[in-house]
Amino acid sequence: MPRYKLLIEYDGGPYAGFQRQDGPPTVQGVLEAAVTAFSGEEVTLKAAGRTDTGVHATGQVIHVDLQKDWPADTVRDAMNAHMREEKVAVLTAEEVGEDFDARFSATKRHYRYTILNRRPQPVLERGYVWGVSKPLDEVMMQAAADRLIGHHDFTTFRSVQCQANSPMRTLDVLNVRREGEHVVIEAAARSFLHNQVRSLVGALKQAGEGRLTPDDVEAMLNARDRHACAPVAPPDGLVFTRVDY
Amino acid sequence: MPRYKLLIEYDGGPYAGFQRQDGPPTVQGVLEAAVTAFSGEEVTLKAAGRTDTGVHATGQVIHVDLQKDWPADTVRDAMNAHMREEKVAVLTAEEVGEDFDARFSATKRHYRYTILNRRPQPVLERGYVWGVSKPLDEVMMQAAADRLIGHHDFTTFRSVQCQANSPMRTLDVLNVRREGEHVVIEAAARSFLHNQVRSLVGALKQAGEGRLTPDDVEAMLNARDRHACAPVAPPDGLVFTRVDY
Repeated sequence: MPRYKLLIEYDGGPYAGFQRQDGPPTVQGVLEAAVTAFSGEEVTLKAAGRTDTGVHATGQVIHVDLQKDWPADTVRDAMNAHMREEKVAVLTAEEVGEDFDARFSATKRHYRYTILNRRPQPVLERGYVWGVSKPLDEVMMQAAADRLIGHHDFTTFRSVQCQANSPMRTLDVLNVRREGEHVVIEAAARSFLHNQVRSLVGALKQAGEGRLTPDDVEAMLNARDRHACAPVAPPDGLVFTRVDY
Repeated sequence: MPRYKLLIEYDGGPYAGFQRQDGPPTVQGVLEAAVTAFSGEEVTLKAAGRTDTGVHATGQVIHVDLQKDWPADTVRDAMNAHMREEKVAVLTAEEVGEDFDARFSATKRHYRYTILNRRPQPVLERGYVWGVSKPLDEVMMQAAADRLIGHHDFTTFRSVQCQANSPMRTLDVLNVRREGEHVVIEAAARSFLHNQVRSLVGALKQAGEGRLTPDDVEAMLNARDRHACAPVAPPDGLVFTRVDY
C-alpha cells in the first residue's frame, strides 16, 4: 500500500480552515475529493498542520495511502486536474515509506506573517497581509520577539480552544524584518499551539506601535493567562511556508 | 483652482478597465465617485495610462482639479474612506501647478509582467501572474527582447483597436529575469501602444519555450502586421508600476 507525501499550496480565504468538517468546504475536503476523483479510493489524509480559516499555505505537507501504486507525478497532475476550480494545488508528490508521517515525523514548522504598514488599506495584497496604518518600529518588535524565543509556557498565546495537552513549546525563531512598507515576521518551532503565531504577532504589533515595551511582552508571557494577550492578528497575513522532516 | 496629483494602486480584476464607461464599474468611475463623495464636486480626472480589464497598478498617476483648496492629505484620506469597499486606493496626494498633466507631462511609463513558470496552476497568486507550465529559458527570452528594444514600428504588437496616430514607439527597457519559479519582465517607454506590453510578452513567452528564435521575433517586428503577432499574454500578470515626470 504505497504512501505519498504531497507538498500543498492553498489560499485559505475561500475555505473553512484545513480540517475536514460537515458543511462548509475545507482544504482537506477538497484534497480528499480530488484523490477519490482520480483513483476511486476513499481516503483520509494526514497533514503537518491544521490551519485556520483564511490562513494560507505554500508549504503544507500531507500524506495519503492508496491501494494502487500510481507514479507520483500522476498523483500530482491528476489531483491538480480535479482541483482547477479550487484554490488548492499539489506542488510536488513523492512516494515515501510507511514510516513517514506528515504530522508526527515533522521536526520543524515554519510560518511567515506579513504586515503592510502604510496609511492606505491593502488593495492588491488584500487578504494576504494585515494592514496596519500606524508606523511600526521593527527594531522594537524584534526586541520584544527576543523575549519570546525559547522554551516557555505559552498559555497567554494559545487559543482557549487549543486541544494540545501541554502549553509548553520551544519557539526557535521569531524574526522581524522590514522590506519597504512590509514588516515580515518569520516563526519556526517543532510545533505550535492553536493561534500561537497570530497571538504572538498581535503582541509584536503593539510593541511596534510603542504601546507595549519588551518588558510588557515578557510580562504577558509570564502571566500564563489568555486574558493577558493582545488582540490576535487576523489570519490574512499568515502563510504556512515549510515543514522540515 | 488647485490641481492634485494622486498616486493610485488598484486591482484590475473587478473592473472593466481604467477608463470610465456606461455600465460596468471602472477604476476611473470609482475614483471620480470618491472625489464627488467627499467634495461634492463633479470632476473628470486625467490619468497617465488607460489600463485594460484585469491589469493592475501600483503606480498609476492621475490629476484632478477641485474648486476648493483641500490639504492634499485630506484628499487622500477622504477618497480612501469612500473606497473602503473597492480595490482602489490613493497612495499619495500632492498639490501641483496647473502646468502638470498626468498624461502629457509623463516622460516614461514602467510596467512589470510576472509569469509563474511551474507545472501546477497559480493558486495563491491567481489573477496576478500568468501561469506557464512549460519551462522557460529566460536567457533566450532576453535575447529575443533585445531585438525589440529601440525605435520601431510596433504595428505587429498593437491592438487593432489602438487609437494612437502612429505605430512608432521607442522601447527603452525590455528586461527579463528569473526569480525562482517567477519570470519577471520589466518594460519602460515614454508611451506604449494599446496591448503592446502584453503582445511583446506573448512573443517572449514563445521564445522562452523554444518555439520562436530571436530571429523569428525580429521578423515578427519587421512584418509590421498584427497577424504576425503571437497570442497576447493575459492581463493578470501585468502591473503598471511607475510614471516618471
